[in-house]
Amino acid sequence: MDVHRNVEGDAEAVAEAHRKDVETQESYGVDYKSYWVDEDAGAVFCLFEGPDKESGERVHREAHGLVADEIYEVQEGR
Amino acid sequence: MDVHRNVEGDAEAVAEAHRKDVETQESYGVDYKSYWVDEDAGAVFCLFEGPDKESGERVHREAHGLVADEIYEVQEGR
Repeated sequence: MDVHRNVEGDAEAVAEAHRKDVETQESYGVDYKSYWVDEDAGAVFCLFEGPDKESGERVHREAHGLVADEIYEVQEGR
Repeated sequence: MDVHRNVEGDAEAVAEAHRKDVETQESYGVDYKSYWVDEDAGAVFCLFEGPDKESGERVHREAHGLVADEIYEVQEGR
């Protein structure tokens, strides 16, 4: 799960960035599963699977350059 | 989506807290959908639906007292 703060774009801009992530993810072994946007707060959460946290950062960097502020290696609760 | 930081309990303790949330949520009109835990970083993300952000805070407060550090009103991206 990564966290982006102070995101300036609106939900449509985030959706466009997400499409670029999905186009880019395969070569890094990453799968962007879901994302959530708080437009007013400028916060975005991206849930992805991949070999490590850094792989998600590489996808964001190549796809659109908007890297996350924080990345967490999470397990989903049951 | 809420964010808990510096969580001291392990994943099992978080699971127990989540069970208490689910037992408590109905009276506040809240539905905890999913949560994710980074044990090493002490971070927990809870995704819930409800009438407003404060309702999620009330559930956590009544259920176990471990309120979130941040709450965001998110829309899921498509």
